[in-house]
Amino acid sequence: MSAAEPAFNRPALEQLLGKRFFYAPAFSLYGGVAGLYDYGPPGCALQANILDIWRKHFVLEEDMLEVDCSIMTPAEVLKTSGHVDRFSDWMCKDLKTGEIFRADHLVENVLEARIDGDKLARNAPVEIKVDKDEKKKKKAAKVTAVRLEDSVVQAYKEILAQIDNYSGPELGELMRTHQIKSPETGNDISEPVVFNLMFASSIGPTGQLQGFLRPETAQGQFLNFKRLLEFNNDRMPFASAQIGRSFRNEISPREGLLRVREFTMAEIEHYVDPAKKDHSRFSEVADYKLNILPASVQLSGKTDLLNITVGEAVEKKIIDNQTLGYFLVRIHMFLTKIGINPDRVRFRQHMANEMAHYACDCWDAEIHTSYGWKECVGCADRSAYDLTVHSNKTGEKLVVRERLPEPLVEEKLQLEINKKVFGPRFKKDAKAVEEHLAALDENTLVGLKKSHDEAGTFAINVNGSSFDITKDLITSFERVSITTHIREYTPNVIEPSFGIGRILYCLMEHVYWTRPEGEARGVLSFPPVVAPTKCLLVPLSTNEVFTPILNKVSAQLRRSGVSSKIDDSGASIGRRYARNDELGTPFGITVDFQSAQDDTITLRERDSTKQIREKIEVVVDLVKEICEGKITWADVSAKYPAFVSQEVAE
Amino acid sequence: MSAAEPAFNRPALEQLLGKRFFYAPAFSLYGGVAGLYDYGPPGCALQANILDIWRKHFVLEEDMLEVDCSIMTPAEVLKTSGHVDRFSDWMCKDLKTGEIFRADHLVENVLEARIDGDKLARNAPVEIKVDKDEKKKKKAAKVTAVRLEDSVVQAYKEILAQIDNYSGPELGELMRTHQIKSPETGNDISEPVVFNLMFASSIGPTGQLQGFLRPETAQGQFLNFKRLLEFNNDRMPFASAQIGRSFRNEISPREGLLRVREFTMAEIEHYVDPAKKDHSRFSEVADYKLNILPASVQLSGKTDLLNITVGEAVEKKIIDNQTLGYFLVRIHMFLTKIGINPDRVRFRQHMANEMAHYACDCWDAEIHTSYGWKECVGCADRSAYDLTVHSNKTGEKLVVRERLPEPLVEEKLQLEINKKVFGPRFKKDAKAVEEHLAALDENTLVGLKKSHDEAGTFAINVNGSSFDITKDLITSFERVSITTHIREYTPNVIEPSFGIGRILYCLMEHVYWTRPEGEARGVLSFPPVVAPTKCLLVPLSTNEVFTPILNKVSAQLRRSGVSSKIDDSGASIGRRYARNDELGTPFGITVDFQSAQDDTITLRERDSTKQIREKIEVVVDLVKEICEGKITWADVSAKYPAFVSQEVAE
Repeated sequence: MSAAEPAFNRPALEQLLGKRFFYAPAFSLYGGVAGLYDYGPPGCALQANILDIWRKHFVLEEDMLEVDCSIMTPAEVLKTSGHVDRFSDWMCKDLKTGEIFRADHLVENVLEARIDGDKLARNAPVEIKVDKDEKKKKKAAKVTAVRLEDSVVQAYKEILAQIDNYSGPELGELMRTHQIKSPETGNDISEPVVFNLMFASSIGPTGQLQGFLRPETAQGQFLNFKRLLEFNNDRMPFASAQIGRSFRNEISPREGLLRVREFTMAEIEHYVDPAKKDHSRFSEVADYKLNILPASVQLSGKTDLLNITVGEAVEKKIIDNQTLGYFLVRIHMFLTKIGINPDRVRFRQHMANEMAHYACDCWDAEIHTSYGWKECVGCADRSAYDLTVHSNKTGEKLVVRERLPEPLVEEKLQLEINKKVFGPRFKKDAKAVEEHLAALDENTLVGLKKSHDEAGTFAINVNGSSFDITKDLITSFERVSITTHIREYTPNVIEPSFGIGRILYCLMEHVYWTRPEGEARGVLSFPPVVAPTKCLLVPLSTNEVFTPILNKVSAQLRRSGVSSKIDDSGASIGRRYARNDELGTPFGITVDFQSAQDDTITLRERDSTKQIREKIEVVVDLVKEICEGKITWADVSAKYPAFVSQEVAE
Repeated sequence: MSAAEPAFNRPALEQLLGKRFFYAPAFSLYGGVAGLYDYGPPGCALQANILDIWRKHFVLEEDMLEVDCSIMTPAEVLKTSGHVDRFSDWMCKDLKTGEIFRADHLVENVLEARIDGDKLARNAPVEIKVDKDEKKKKKAAKVTAVRLEDSVVQAYKEILAQIDNYSGPELGELMRTHQIKSPETGNDISEPVVFNLMFASSIGPTGQLQGFLRPETAQGQFLNFKRLLEFNNDRMPFASAQIGRSFRNEISPREGLLRVREFTMAEIEHYVDPAKKDHSRFSEVADYKLNILPASVQLSGKTDLLNITVGEAVEKKIIDNQTLGYFLVRIHMFLTKIGINPDRVRFRQHMANEMAHYACDCWDAEIHTSYGWKECVGCADRSAYDLTVHSNKTGEKLVVRERLPEPLVEEKLQLEINKKVFGPRFKKDAKAVEEHLAALDENTLVGLKKSHDEAGTFAINVNGSSFDITKDLITSFERVSITTHIREYTPNVIEPSFGIGRILYCLMEHVYWTRPEGEARGVLSFPPVVAPTKCLLVPLSTNEVFTPILNKVSAQLRRSGVSSKIDDSGASIGRRYARNDELGTPFGITVDFQSAQDDTITLRERDSTKQIREKIEVVVDLVKEICEGKITWADVSAKYPAFVSQEVAE
C-alpha cells in the first residue's frame, strides 16, 4: 500500500476527485448547500458497483428479501418508533452572533485545539489540519501555544475518548467546567438544546398530514414484517434488505461525504428468535480475527484494540451472540472485498448513552481515514423494540407463531369467574376487574388463593379502587394442566446498516497514492471489481485505420460484460493513461499499427504499468477473468511475457 | 397474448399482486397514505431488472454520462427553473364538505359518467368500472341512466379529447356551463385555485433555507452541465442520465401505481446544437413504424392514430427533428424489450396549454391499460430553457464553445466611443449609455449612422431619458470586417423521461392472464430477461436425498448469473408451480429420484407448461441462453424431446 498515512495529502486527493467529477458539492452554481453532494459519472459507477457487490454478498448469498419502500413517512409512524421524540442532536448558539454549533463537536474541537496548543508549547510535533476551504477554517478552533498541566491533558483525552457518550446537560456542564467559548469570537455559548434531525414536510393538499423524510430505511421494513414473513412461507430466521436514500438534517455537515444531509444506505433487518441467537453458518467464520474496541475499554478512557477471533469474542460474551458475530465478520469481508484496507477497520462497541434509542447493543465498523476513525457500518441489536412499539400502537400482531415440536404441558393455577354474578355485582367496573384477574401472574395467584381458601375472599386493587372477590364470584380456582401447541414470540432484529457514501469516501482515501516519478501523478488503485470503468481503449493516434479494431475490441468487451471507454482524443498516450490512473481504471488497451496487421493489442495494468501483447481474444478473456476475480494480474504476468515498446513509453 | 382487453379482470390481478407482495400500500398498518407504495421482493427485483435493461439500452449503448444528484433542492433553484411558480395543478373544493378535487379530474369523471348514463338510457353496453375499494368508489361519479342530446354527447367527447389542454379558469368555466357539482353530495364547487405540487421542507438548523424535494431529476443534471461537458472532453452532442426518486404532492393520487406521490424516474438530458438537431444514427431507425397522435388531430376533437415511419414523420415535420424521432423509436424498442405489448403503445403530442412550462415540444409514450391510455414516458424538447434561466440567474456561462472549421469573417458597422469625453458628459449615466450603444443591432446602427453622418448627431433613449450622441463623443463609426474563430451557443435539450412505476404497472397488466383450465390460476408472463426470478427449483418431496442435487443446480445457476429460488415446502408440485406462475418465474426445474441416479432434471416452461428432461449442465446452459436472449423456448422445444411424467402432472 502506497497510501502511507503520515504523508497523506488530502487536498490533493480532493482536487483529483473534483477534477474527475467523482463527486462535487450540489448546487454550487447557487453557492452550494452544506451536506448535499452530486455524484458524477465515475462516482456514480463506483457507487453502483459497490451496491452490486453488496447485493451479491448479502442479499443473494443469504437469500434475503429485498424491498423498496417509501421515503416520505407519516409523522405517526416516526412518533411510534421514537424518532420524533429522540432522533436528535444537541445544538448551542454563540450568544452574540447566533452562530450554531453541534454541542459535542464544539467541545471536541476546542479540547483538541488545546491539546495541540499544549504540544506546540512543548515543542512536540503537531499535525495541523490543512483545509483550503475558508469557511471550514473559520469553524475550526484556533491552535495557540499554551502549556497545560499534565493532569489537564489527561482529563481532556479521557473526555475525548468518550465524547459520544455525553448527554446535552453533561455537555453543558463540560462547557462550563472547561470554559469552552465560541471558537472564533470568544463569546459565551448557550446551554445545549435538542434539535430533531428529521426533515419535515406535509402530505396532501390540506396540509394537515405531517410527514418526515425517513432518517433510516428500517421502518419501512418493520412495517412490512407480516407480509415478508408470509412471503418467506412463515420460516424463521430470515432477513429483509433495502438500498435507498435517507435524510438527516445535520446541524453542521462537515468532512465531505462523511457527514451529509442526504445519503444512500443499505440496511439489513435480520429477524431471529430471541431464544436462539445462534447462527447456522457461524462455524464458517468462528476463526476469523477482528480488531475490536469494547465499551468497557472506552469507558476506562482508553482506545486500545483487541485482536480476537469472533469465536472467542462470542464465547467470552464480549460480542453478545453468534448472529451479531457472524454479521461483523461478513461486514469485514465485504469491506475488504471492495478494497478497504483491512488493517484500517475496527469494530467499536457503543457506550450506553450514545446508543440509538432503539438499540440494546451496537457495534460500529469504523474505518480509519485522514479525519480519524469514522463510523461507516452500524451493526445493532434492536431487540424486539420496533415490532413491539408498532404492534402496541396499531393493535396489529407482529409475531411469529411456531408449532412446537412437542406440545408444552404446564401446571398452572387457573381462576374461573362466575359471569352471572360478576356483572350485577361490579356493574361498570366488571370488565376492568375481569381483565385485571385474567392478567395476574402465577406468583400473585398463589398468594390470592391462600386468602381465598382460608378467608373465603381476597381483595384486589383496580385503577385505584379496591374490590372484594368473594367465593360466590368464582366457579373454580384450581391447579390445572395446560397444553400449548403453538409458541408465539416477537422476533429480535439484528441490523447491519451501511452508509454507502462514507464507505465510498474511505475507499478513495485507501486506494489513493501518487507515482514516485512524477509530482501530482495521482492513482486510484480500485480493485477491478469496483472500478468505475474496467478498461480504457486508446488508439495510438487519431488515424482512421484504428477505428474498426477499436470497435471490435469494444464490442467483444461489452459482450463479456466488461465496461470500457474509448479515448480517441488527440492527447499523448502517456497523458491519456495518466488521466485514466486518476479515474482508477485498472486496464488500458492500446491499438497500434501492428494491431492492424496481426490482430494483437497491448494490455497495460494500472498499478505496475507493466504490459503484455497478445491476440484480441486472449486479452479480452484475461480482462474478463480478472474483473470476475477468477485470476489476478500476477497470474497474467507470470504466464505472458512482458511487452516493452517505445511508442507507449510514459 | 391472452391478456385480451374486454375480459380483463383488474381486481383479480390486483389481488394477485398484493398476495405475492409485488407492491402494497405503504404504512397500511397505520391506515395508509394515498399515493405511497412499498415494493416487496418480486416488485423490487422486477424494478431492478427493468432499470438494468434501461441502463444497458440507453446509458451503455449510447455512452451517456450517468449522475446521481441530490433530491433535496434549495428553493432558489426551483424558483429559477419555474417550478415554484408554475409546477402546479388546479384544485377545487366542495363548498360545504371541504372535500378536495383536482379540477380536471372532476370534470373528466362527471362527463364520463354522464356519457355512460346516456348509454344506459339508450340500452348500449357500458363498461362499469369495477372497484372493490370503497374509498375509491365514493370518489367516482355515479352513473345514472339519463338520455342526453346527441349534440351534448358530442360536446362532452370533444371536451374529454382535450381535457389536458384547459387552464384553471377554463375548467371553472366548463364547470359552470355544464353544471358540474360535487359528485357525491351535489354541492357547489369552488373556483379552481392553483396548488403547487412540490413537497416543501427547510434545510439546516436555522429553518431559514427553504427547500423542496425535486419533482424531476432533471435540474441536478442541468446544474452539472459544465462539469459534464468537460468530463466529455468538450465534445457535442452528449447526454447525461439519472435514475432516482422524485416527489410530487398530488392532489388526488389514484389508479394505484399510475398516480403516486413518490416515484422512481429515469431521465436522459441529451444536449444538441440547436442548429444541428439531426442524429448520427437516425438512418438505423428511419423505417421503424410508430403509432402517433399529433396535437393537430387532438385539437380537432379526435383521437385517431397515424401509423407512420419515423423517417416520414420527421420529413413531414410532424415530429420536429431527427433527434426527437430517434429517441421515440429507442423508447418504443425499450418498452417492447421489457414485455410491453407494442400494439398498445402510442405517441401522443402535447397540446400547447398542457405542455410543461419548460417544453417547446413534447411527445408522450402512452401505454394502453384497463384505465385507458396512460402517459409513461415523456419525450420533451426543452430547447435552451433550463440552461438559459440558470445562467441568467447565476451569471455562470452554460454554453458550448466550438472552434469553427474556418474562421467566420463578417462585415459589421462598428461604433467606438471616446471614453474621455463620454464620462464627463454623461456622468452617472455614462455606463448605461455606453452599454446601450454596445447592444444595438446592425439595423438600428445603420439608421443612426445616417443621422450621424448627415446631422452630426443622433439621439437615443436609455431608461426613459433621451441622450444626444454628438460627433465629439465618437472616435469611429465605420464598417469593419470582424473575424470569429469560436462559436458559442447554449445547447438545446431533448429529454426522454421515464416513470418506472407506471411502466411496471402497465407491464403487469400486459403480461397477466389466467389459465383456461382452472379458475383463478393467474400467470404473469414476464419475458425471462425482466422476470423477478428466472428459475424455481423444486424437489419432488422433502426427502433429504434431493438436497445435494438442489444445491448443485443452484450453485451452477448462480455461477451462470441466473437467479433462482428453491421451494422445498411441503406443498404439491402443482401448487408450487401455480404459486410460481403468479410470481412470473419463467422456468421450473424439478429434481426427482431419477435425478439422483442419472444427473438429469426436468425443465418446465411457464407459459406452455411443456417440459424437457436433460442433464443438469445442459439445462443450466439452456436457461442461461434464454435469459440472455440468445435463444428462445421455441428453439429448445424444437431440439429436445418433450418430457411427460405422471409425477409432475398438474
